Amino acid sequence: MNREFERYIAEKLSLYQDCIVKDAMIYCMDGGKRFRPRIIFAIAKGFGLAEEQAYPLGLALEMIQSYSLIHDDLPAMDNDDFRRGKPSCHKAFGEDIAILTGDALLTESFNVIADSGLEPRIIAKCISALSHYAGMQGMVYGQMLDVQAEKGDLSDLEIIQDHKTGGLFKISCLLPMYLADKNDEEYFINLGRRIGIIFQHQDDLFDLLRSKDDFGKSTSDAQNGKFTALSLYNIDELQMVLDDKFAELSEYLKKAPFDTSYLLELLQELKER
Amino acid sequence: MNREFERYIAEKLSLYQDCIVKDAMIYCMDGGKRFRPRIIFAIAKGFGLAEEQAYPLGLALEMIQSYSLIHDDLPAMDNDDFRRGKPSCHKAFGEDIAILTGDALLTESFNVIADSGLEPRIIAKCISALSHYAGMQGMVYGQMLDVQAEKGDLSDLEIIQDHKTGGLFKISCLLPMYLADKNDEEYFINLGRRIGIIFQHQDDLFDLLRSKDDFGKSTSDAQNGKFTALSLYNIDELQMVLDDKFAELSEYLKKAPFDTSYLLELLQELKER
Repeated sequence: MNREFERYIAEKLSLYQDCIVKDAMIYCMDGGKRFRPRIIFAIAKGFGLAEEQAYPLGLALEMIQSYSLIHDDLPAMDNDDFRRGKPSCHKAFGEDIAILTGDALLTESFNVIADSGLEPRIIAKCISALSHYAGMQGMVYGQMLDVQAEKGDLSDLEIIQDHKTGGLFKISCLLPMYLADKNDEEYFINLGRRIGIIFQHQDDLFDLLRSKDDFGKSTSDAQNGKFTALSLYNIDELQMVLDDKFAELSEYLKKAPFDTSYLLELLQELKER
Repeated sequence: MNREFERYIAEKLSLYQDCIVKDAMIYCMDGGKRFRPRIIFAIAKGFGLAEEQAYPLGLALEMIQSYSLIHDDLPAMDNDDFRRGKPSCHKAFGEDIAILTGDALLTESFNVIADSGLEPRIIAKCISALSHYAGMQGMVYGQMLDVQAEKGDLSDLEIIQDHKTGGLFKISCLLPMYLADKNDEEYFINLGRRIGIIFQHQDDLFDLLRSKDDFGKSTSDAQNGKFTALSLYNIDELQMVLDDKFAELSEYLKKAPFDTSYLLELLQELKER
């Protein structure tokens, strides 16, 4: 855990005026693994920047991630009562407050970047990427495909995951590149896509393994009939797919226009989680 | 109706990839009075700018307005089945799609400004103001107060309305000022606040008058026990309050740092609606 960044998050959230939505924002922002911000920081450091310079970008992305979980958990969406080991937002605060808390986090994430004090040129590029890959060319589009699709083939799954999960990972890779004042969109979008697929496949696998361990409780997405990698592969096959994807990612990083040592360290952690 | 601006809206929305959320975005963006964008255009013209330069700002604001109505109409919020004379978004498309459509419009509104081609300095300022007054210092905060408060005194009502309705009106006044490269925040925030209060008082009054006309159907917010200006004033009193507020606004506009003729014309329309 990065205590400096956690302190930064807590300080920024404390500035909102006291109200139930603020309480819910703090409640929901607590306990995340901060994996996406850590990608931002690893790439920023690979460009020779100080991690702290990227804190506003990390916070903004974590707020978007948090809003998406709150809205996904709503009864009309995935109807999940628990999140990160505690009652989900609408269970703890009511459905109306959960909707508003998601809206607040999404809106304020753009404010965090707009008021970051970064150069306007960099602000405009970061907000363009954030809104692009969190919206209709990214996460919201993927989420819509996900609520509608119950089955399909590999290419359907890849389209859903490339938008739904991949959206925020593309942002994680693009923002530090803009922060370093570079313009190598293609490389960093592909990097985000690759990390996103690995992350999602792992999550699907862990979800199933956990539910198997848990005295046979059938609570995994795969067993609930949700369309995941395990609708297409068995556990051993998915493990092999993951090994291949990690190997391909290592190859891809050899062409990276930044010092990849920090990112490789983070990815090793991902591999061993 | 401003056909050029309607065409601009239709063209921009047509660019999203075809899907049910796109259909819902178009459905919900249709039929608005565009009053907030028209304030933007009137002030922009008062600064000597061409109306078209402000189209991205007008579209972004209309998208935010539209998202807020979609989420407000949800069963967990105001539970409204109709909006602008047709089924509300969740009635027409389902609750999950309505939540996602609101999220998409909010996210994409920032994209419209970020990708507007305006100067980055102006983009950063517009997005700062938009996220500020649509979020926890504006509309979302006001909406939270509104779902929680069922009664109160005049100062409670003014705080709710200044945030909930006033938020987007402050944005309407600030954005064209930034577009003209001015920095007179205080004047334009107060202008938005004044127009917002008038607009909201009128809406509360029309809401009650309409429901009275309608063969005694008790469907107004005031009669449903919602906290509006009519919880504090009777109809005649509110009419007088409105006259006073219009007179004060006219005085305030005499100190305006732009040619107010276009805005006065629009406000006359508001007065006579």
